[in-house]
Amino acid sequence: MKPGIRLGILGGGQLARMLAISAHQMGVSPWIFSNNKNDPAQQVTANSVIGALDDKKALKNFFNQVDLVTFESEFLNVELLKNIDSKKKLSPSPEIMGIVQDRRTQKELLDSAKIPTAPWLSVTTLKDALYAQTHLGFPLVFKKRRFGYDGYGTFIVKTKKDLQSFIDNEFNNKGDGFIAEKWIPFKRELACIFARNGKNEVVHYPLVESFQKNARCFWVKGPINHKSFNKWTTTFKKLLKKANYVGVMGVELFETDKGLIVNELAPRVHNSGHYTQDAFAVNQFDLHIKAILDQPLTLPKQSYPGFAMVNLLGDEKLPRDPQWTIPKEVKLHWYGKSENRPGRKMGHINVVSASANEALKLALSAHKRFQL
Amino acid sequence: MKPGIRLGILGGGQLARMLAISAHQMGVSPWIFSNNKNDPAQQVTANSVIGALDDKKALKNFFNQVDLVTFESEFLNVELLKNIDSKKKLSPSPEIMGIVQDRRTQKELLDSAKIPTAPWLSVTTLKDALYAQTHLGFPLVFKKRRFGYDGYGTFIVKTKKDLQSFIDNEFNNKGDGFIAEKWIPFKRELACIFARNGKNEVVHYPLVESFQKNARCFWVKGPINHKSFNKWTTTFKKLLKKANYVGVMGVELFETDKGLIVNELAPRVHNSGHYTQDAFAVNQFDLHIKAILDQPLTLPKQSYPGFAMVNLLGDEKLPRDPQWTIPKEVKLHWYGKSENRPGRKMGHINVVSASANEALKLALSAHKRFQL
Repeated sequence: MKPGIRLGILGGGQLARMLAISAHQMGVSPWIFSNNKNDPAQQVTANSVIGALDDKKALKNFFNQVDLVTFESEFLNVELLKNIDSKKKLSPSPEIMGIVQDRRTQKELLDSAKIPTAPWLSVTTLKDALYAQTHLGFPLVFKKRRFGYDGYGTFIVKTKKDLQSFIDNEFNNKGDGFIAEKWIPFKRELACIFARNGKNEVVHYPLVESFQKNARCFWVKGPINHKSFNKWTTTFKKLLKKANYVGVMGVELFETDKGLIVNELAPRVHNSGHYTQDAFAVNQFDLHIKAILDQPLTLPKQSYPGFAMVNLLGDEKLPRDPQWTIPKEVKLHWYGKSENRPGRKMGHINVVSASANEALKLALSAHKRFQL
Repeated sequence: MKPGIRLGILGGGQLARMLAISAHQMGVSPWIFSNNKNDPAQQVTANSVIGALDDKKALKNFFNQVDLVTFESEFLNVELLKNIDSKKKLSPSPEIMGIVQDRRTQKELLDSAKIPTAPWLSVTTLKDALYAQTHLGFPLVFKKRRFGYDGYGTFIVKTKKDLQSFIDNEFNNKGDGFIAEKWIPFKRELACIFARNGKNEVVHYPLVESFQKNARCFWVKGPINHKSFNKWTTTFKKLLKKANYVGVMGVELFETDKGLIVNELAPRVHNSGHYTQDAFAVNQFDLHIKAILDQPLTLPKQSYPGFAMVNLLGDEKLPRDPQWTIPKEVKLHWYGKSENRPGRKMGHINVVSASANEALKLALSAHKRFQL
C-alpha cells in the first residue's frame, strides 16, 4: 500500500472515531461523513464532510472524494448505497449489509452455513405470530427485522397475556415485519471478532465473555476457553467465505447446554472487540482497515494472559457532569461526546493482567473512579 | 479531570501528532498551532490554528483559546513565551525550556544536580576555544549552544588542523557561542524517559539502547540492564524536582567505562520513547499529558519482556515513493508527511517480543518491507 489512501467512513460516532485513529497510524487518511461537526469522529481528523446518511447526492459526492469507503453502522439505506456508481469502493459490500441488517436474511445466511442459532420463524402476518407461539412455545422472543439494537426492537413474550400485549401494542404498528425466536436459556454471553480480506485470508481474536447491563454491553473479559470453539470457528470461516465478506465482523454468541449458538452478527468493528486496542499488537480497527485494503491478515498475537474492557456508560443520576482521576494502569478511550445521557456509551477502559478475572477486577475497580 | 479540556500544542510535527492522538483518547481536546494545514498533527484534529511560532500576537491569541499549552520542540523563542500574560498555561515552563535549549545552561543544571556528563567548558571567544583544546585535549567536541539537533551544530575536532578549520569556518560566523566537551569514548548510547507532575510525583520507563545512523536515531531496544541505573535515577529525580520540571523529559545517555553519563536532555516526549506506545499500558504521550494535567503518575507496568522501535527514515535512493505491505505483528505509526526526504523521519514501527534482541530482530526484518 501507499500512504495517503483516502478512507471514507460513513458515520461519526465512536466506532468511526477509533477507525480514524487507526487509519492515521497506518498512513491512511480518514475522511468522516456525518451530520454534525462535533461528532466524536469529526474531532479526530481534518478531513470532514458534513452530510446526511440518506442524502444520495451528498453520499455520491463523498464516494467520489475518497478511494474506499467503510461504515460504522449497518443500518444504512442499502438500496441507496447499491445505486451509487462507485459502490464497489464500499467494504463490507452493500449486499452483505443488506443481508445482515435484516434479522430474517441474517438467520437465513446462518442457517445456510449450518451455524447453530435459536430456532426461528419469519413473522409477517398475525397468523404467523400465532403460529410462531404454537410452534416455538413460551417463552419466545419477537425481534424487529430491522433497526433493533441494544434491546430496542426485542420483545420477550412469556405468557398469552404478553403475546396479546405484543400483538396489540407493537405488532400491528410495524410494517417492517418480525422474526420469532425460541427463547434459549444460556449460561453466559460470549463474543468473537473475525476479519477476512478479499484474498480469503481469515483471522479471529479469542473468544470473550460479555456482560450486559440494561441490554447494553457493560464489560468484556477474556480469553474464554470453550471446547467447541475451534470447531465452531472452522464452520464460521466458511460462512465468511460463502458471503464473500470483507472486513471485520463481530459475532455475539450464547453458551448453552447444547453448545455455542450465534445470537447476532455485526458487519463491522464491535464493542466486544475494544479490548484488542490494548491487548494485541494489531487491534480490531487496524485489522478492519487491513482487511478492506486487502493487506495480509495474520492472527494477532495475544500479548497478555488476560484482559478486560469496561464501558463508561452515562449515569442515571444528576448532575451527569463527567469527571475522573485517571486510574493507574488503565488505558482510557474517551469518545468526546458533547452530551452525557443515561446509558450512553461515553468511553471505555481497557486493562491487561495475569488473567481474565484479574483484569476484570482491576477494570471494575478503576471504573469506580469515573463519575459519569 | 473533566473531559473537553483544551490542550494547545505548539508545533505540527510527529510528536505533536502523537500527543494529539493520546489527548483524544484521554478526553482532552487537542488544538494544534503550526504554520501549515498539512502538518502531521493538523491532520489528526479538527481544532487547527495556522500561525507562526514567532508571531507573538498569534501565540497570545492561541494561549487565550486553550486551557493549557505544551510544545513538541524546545527550540522556541523563550523570551517571547515569557512575555505572554497567560504563560502559566505552558508546561514545561518557558524558564526550563530556556535552560535546556542552551547547552551551556543545560550543562550547568546537570552539574548543579551532580549528574555526571562529559567535562566541558563554555566557549565565547577565540581564547576560550584555544583554552578548551589545551584543557580538554584531543579529541574534543564543539557544540553550538542553541538549535543543534541530529548532529547539526556538533563539530568533532581531532587534530590541530581540525581545530583551525573549525575556527575558520564555523566559530567566527556564530555569535551565539559554543560549549566545548571532552570526547568520551562510549560503549553504546542509552536513553530513558522520565515524567514529573506538579505534585512531585516522578516516574520513569526502563533504560533502553538507541542506535544512530548518520546522527539520526535508527532503532531503540529494551529493556537494558545497567548496574548503576537505579542509583542514577535517584539522582536524576532530584534534578527534576530542583528544576520544578513538569512534563515528560527524554534523557540521552552514554554508557562509558566510568558509568552512565548524560549526553543531552530533551524537555519533551522523545523518539527514544516511542516504543512505549505498544509496550506499556500508558505511553509517553499519555504520561506527558497526565503530568501537565497534574494527574497521578504511576510507574507504567512493562507488559512485555522485550520491545524495539525502528524509525522509518526517508531513503537516499529515488523514487522516494513510500509503499509497503504491512508486516505482521508490527504496529506502524506513520506521520503523514507530504514529502519524503532522505533521512527524514517518516514513521516508525514498534515490535514487542520475548526479549529486546528478538524484538529488534523482528523489527529490522519488518523494516525491510518498507520502501521509503
